[in-house]
Amino acid sequence: MADHSLPTALNLPMQDPLPAHTQKYFDVCMEKLGMIPNVLKAYAFDTEKLDAFTGMYNNLMLAPSGLSKLEREMIAVVVSSINKCFYCLVAHGAAVRALSGDPALGEALVMNYRVADLDPRHRAMLDFATKMTQASATIEEPDRQALRDAGFSDADIWDIANVAGFFNMTNRVASATDMRPNAEYHAQAR
Amino acid sequence: MADHSLPTALNLPMQDPLPAHTQKYFDVCMEKLGMIPNVLKAYAFDTEKLDAFTGMYNNLMLAPSGLSKLEREMIAVVVSSINKCFYCLVAHGAAVRALSGDPALGEALVMNYRVADLDPRHRAMLDFATKMTQASATIEEPDRQALRDAGFSDADIWDIANVAGFFNMTNRVASATDMRPNAEYHAQAR
Amino acid sequence: MADHSLPTALNLPMQDPLPAHTQKYFDVCMEKLGMIPNVLKAYAFDTEKLDAFTGMYNNLMLAPSGLSKLEREMIAVVVSSINKCFYCLVAHGAAVRALSGDPALGEALVMNYRVADLDPRHRAMLDFATKMTQASATIEEPDRQALRDAGFSDADIWDIANVAGFFNMTNRVASATDMRPNAEYHAQAR
Amino acid sequence: MADHSLPTALNLPMQDPLPAHTQKYFDVCMEKLGMIPNVLKAYAFDTEKLDAFTGMYNNLMLAPSGLSKLEREMIAVVVSSINKCFYCLVAHGAAVRALSGDPALGEALVMNYRVADLDPRHRAMLDFATKMTQASATIEEPDRQALRDAGFSDADIWDIANVAGFFNMTNRVASATDMRPNAEYHAQAR
Amino acid sequence: MADHSLPTALNLPMQDPLPAHTQKYFDVCMEKLGMIPNVLKAYAFDTEKLDAFTGMYNNLMLAPSGLSKLEREMIAVVVSSINKCFYCLVAHGAAVRALSGDPALGEALVMNYRVADLDPRHRAMLDFATKMTQASATIEEPDRQALRDAGFSDADIWDIANVAGFFNMTNRVASATDMRPNAEYHAQAR
Amino acid sequence: MADHSLPTALNLPMQDPLPAHTQKYFDVCMEKLGMIPNVLKAYAFDTEKLDAFTGMYNNLMLAPSGLSKLEREMIAVVVSSINKCFYCLVAHGAAVRALSGDPALGEALVMNYRVADLDPRHRAMLDFATKMTQASATIEEPDRQALRDAGFSDADIWDIANVAGFFNMTNRVASATDMRPNAEYHAQAR
Repeated sequence: MADHSLPTALNLPMQDPLPAHTQKYFDVCMEKLGMIPNVLKAYAFDTEKLDAFTGMYNNLMLAPSGLSKLEREMIAVVVSSINKCFYCLVAHGAAVRALSGDPALGEALVMNYRVADLDPRHRAMLDFATKMTQASATIEEPDRQALRDAGFSDADIWDIANVAGFFNMTNRVASATDMRPNAEYHAQAR
Repeated sequence: MADHSLPTALNLPMQDPLPAHTQKYFDVCMEKLGMIPNVLKAYAFDTEKLDAFTGMYNNLMLAPSGLSKLEREMIAVVVSSINKCFYCLVAHGAAVRALSGDPALGEALVMNYRVADLDPRHRAMLDFATKMTQASATIEEPDRQALRDAGFSDADIWDIANVAGFFNMTNRVASATDMRPNAEYHAQAR
Repeated sequence: MADHSLPTALNLPMQDPLPAHTQKYFDVCMEKLGMIPNVLKAYAFDTEKLDAFTGMYNNLMLAPSGLSKLEREMIAVVVSSINKCFYCLVAHGAAVRALSGDPALGEALVMNYRVADLDPRHRAMLDFATKMTQASATIEEPDRQALRDAGFSDADIWDIANVAGFFNMTNRVASATDMRPNAEYHAQAR
Repeated sequence: MADHSLPTALNLPMQDPLPAHTQKYFDVCMEKLGMIPNVLKAYAFDTEKLDAFTGMYNNLMLAPSGLSKLEREMIAVVVSSINKCFYCLVAHGAAVRALSGDPALGEALVMNYRVADLDPRHRAMLDFATKMTQASATIEEPDRQALRDAGFSDADIWDIANVAGFFNMTNRVASATDMRPNAEYHAQAR
Repeated sequence: MADHSLPTALNLPMQDPLPAHTQKYFDVCMEKLGMIPNVLKAYAFDTEKLDAFTGMYNNLMLAPSGLSKLEREMIAVVVSSINKCFYCLVAHGAAVRALSGDPALGEALVMNYRVADLDPRHRAMLDFATKMTQASATIEEPDRQALRDAGFSDADIWDIANVAGFFNMTNRVASATDMRPNAEYHAQAR
Repeated sequence: MADHSLPTALNLPMQDPLPAHTQKYFDVCMEKLGMIPNVLKAYAFDTEKLDAFTGMYNNLMLAPSGLSKLEREMIAVVVSSINKCFYCLVAHGAAVRALSGDPALGEALVMNYRVADLDPRHRAMLDFATKMTQASATIEEPDRQALRDAGFSDADIWDIANVAGFFNMTNRVASATDMRPNAEYHAQAR
């Protein structure tokens, strides 16, 4: 793979210096993850855009929810598999492997979630995310009811819809800008 | 069309009372637009989610950019046309009609942007948004170069990609939750 | 939108003078509609072709049928939405708005008929027209039976099939020749 | 194959007796073709519909045109191949074999016209008909210009568009009603 | 159709002389079929490749199986119809006509197997082959169970899957190399 | 992932005892690979089928060719990515990682080969394999010429076509039978 000094194919270097709150955020990333995820570096050419992005990302993926963090990452990977987004599959595939402790599950969700041995709750959740990704205009009440029948509340359905929607955004932004994942992800949690 | 007392098919009523900053925001909407857009009511069951959404929306659609507000609305409508999102076509179709003063342009972007008499800049912009929506994994450097050749900077390309990405998110959230547009939009700027 | 002195991108001016029966037909159009629909002008380079077209059109859309005129227009719009035909969406979208007195219904059929609040009869009719448009080779007896179960007779099914088929023809002719709708339609019945 | 006493799956028997002009038309068919094509029998439950259909069919397929009768049949077969219409492939495949004297050409157009050894005129004509059938909303001026470059006049382009459009109608009507071809076609001109 | 002195568009002439066992095989073909199928000539530039191909072909299509030879040819034609492979449709369409004694069945499978009057066993078999060809990643246990319910053993399912898989290979090889069928097939068993 | 005592969802246990040449082959697999690949166990319910399969596999993937073994594995992975075949992606993804010594290359080919930093030869090769997999009926002489222009001989083109074709077969057989990859692959060459 080529060496990329910028996180995307666009010539948009990070603000220099970074605002204090951004520098602090990046320091925390280095400390906890050993890297600054390239998606953050990519948005950091304009830290107002970075703040808007992280505000939404953190609410969706980290805030309290009826969906576990692993479940949200599972949705991320399945949506990204349909959209064939290299960045998101690498980064969130690693997250599924790490959070589940099951490397084969991470691989299955990257490749074809239908072969994974999923319980009915997870299967319903991923079927809904798949339909949202491939044919959202055909979703109707029976699709929502199938989630309720699998035990999800209406607030959970909102979260499934928003996580699946979010990765339909980021997959496209990453592919449109040729965003490259940090090399560290590849070997994690194998 | 049915009367919907909730803005979506999910039973997620607004926080009551709303936090002061949200109530103020909604008051401004009523004053300026004569309505509170249903997408805002829909997120208001959890005002942290609403704040994250509006933070991203306002940065993308209203902040200074090399793209005019009309251009951002044009992208919104063309993406929504591909995804057949009723909510977004109604709301942002009205915005294109109002900002352009050209009702037929709004109609053309809802129906098939290829018939609109677009200058090369707008055609390139909407072709890129279309490819991002339909086949983002096949975008490569020549696609970005076509935008540069049409006069867009790398920062503009970032904005095109993020606006197109954003509506690929909201289209799916709106369809997944059966979000209904305010009736006021239909007759606006005809 | 550009000014088009010819109704299509083809250099095929109307016969001049028109035969008496054609001139009379166009005079009636002007009197009743305030315009001559561009599709008629387009065919009028060869009035034998015009007569053949109007013979079929008038039988399908205006002759006595188990389908109301509004129902036939609803099929026209839904088929045209799938095929993204600007001419037919503009002209027949206006017809749905006018015949139904419900502008939002017209918009919904242009954008995504699945969000419209349709009774089971209309939903079955439009689902059949959709399947005919997208995957006609997969229609089998259960598809026809679903129409009978919704109350349609075999003669009605013939009419649904022929109206849906007809707009699959005209959508393609209009797009292939860049046929432009009369500007008058845009603001009608809003 | 099953024996079908009616020409379609709909219970719509022919008018009895037929009007004199229809009976005469059918007598001519028997005399010239040795059969009454089932499509005519199908429409004959309502001879006004039959007259409208044959008016359009005869104008398109038999009237003077810059396209030869074989060329019009070639378009019919290629469109029907994409739509997988059994009736039209059987009937018009036989016509291509008979008019061309080249059974392998008929087979190639039924199966995949790209393998046929076509001159550039025919290839351009069939490429246009294919694009009209698969993605009519994406046709633009360069597509029409390609036909002009291959030697077609604007009147010829009109005829290509209308023949291709017509079979997009009849393919769908035939599939929607399970119209069955006369058995005589299968062995003709092999 | 053009005269092709080589069986494909690749300049790969047969080994000369052929090994004795290959020459003998080709002599048997001439004697029994009156021709050497072009697919064999195509592989004969490298008789090790030819032997590997015929080893697999003969096992799949001719060895004892719960599927009759006609059933295996029916799968071949339906898969080839989806992939629009001229070579395989011509050669195996002839085989279906010959083995079934029903030319219309051969035509129906080439054009659209859904119109053929198939018993439930054959319909299930061809539906499975179709799903394998169009969307293999979505096959799950209910698809296999549908075959068992139609009377197929697990060994039969293996054979259906392998025959359908095999023609998904050969269709692509034939199209990729422009392999041409022997002219003799066209008129056979009409 | 579930424990599968059989290599597929079909109840087809291996012949017992295995013929001597098969037992020897499996012993070599255990010695060299530390496992017997499940695809071999799956075919071993009928060792004539196993021999036919391995005859073809070994010729294609291991015999002398203008394509390196890595190149053949690259084709295998890219075809399997389109078809979303879990078995083949796991097994041949591991092979690409091992033969290339570049784990990120293996990941990129599984996820979206367009992001990999490929030289023009490999890009042309994988573009051809992709077109064969997605739309083989549209391959024409310019597609083959693009391979020649990238330095491939006609014998190389044959091999590209046959390897790409082969995995279009095995992907479908694996998905149709729910064939499961050996767990050992997941962690290899990371």
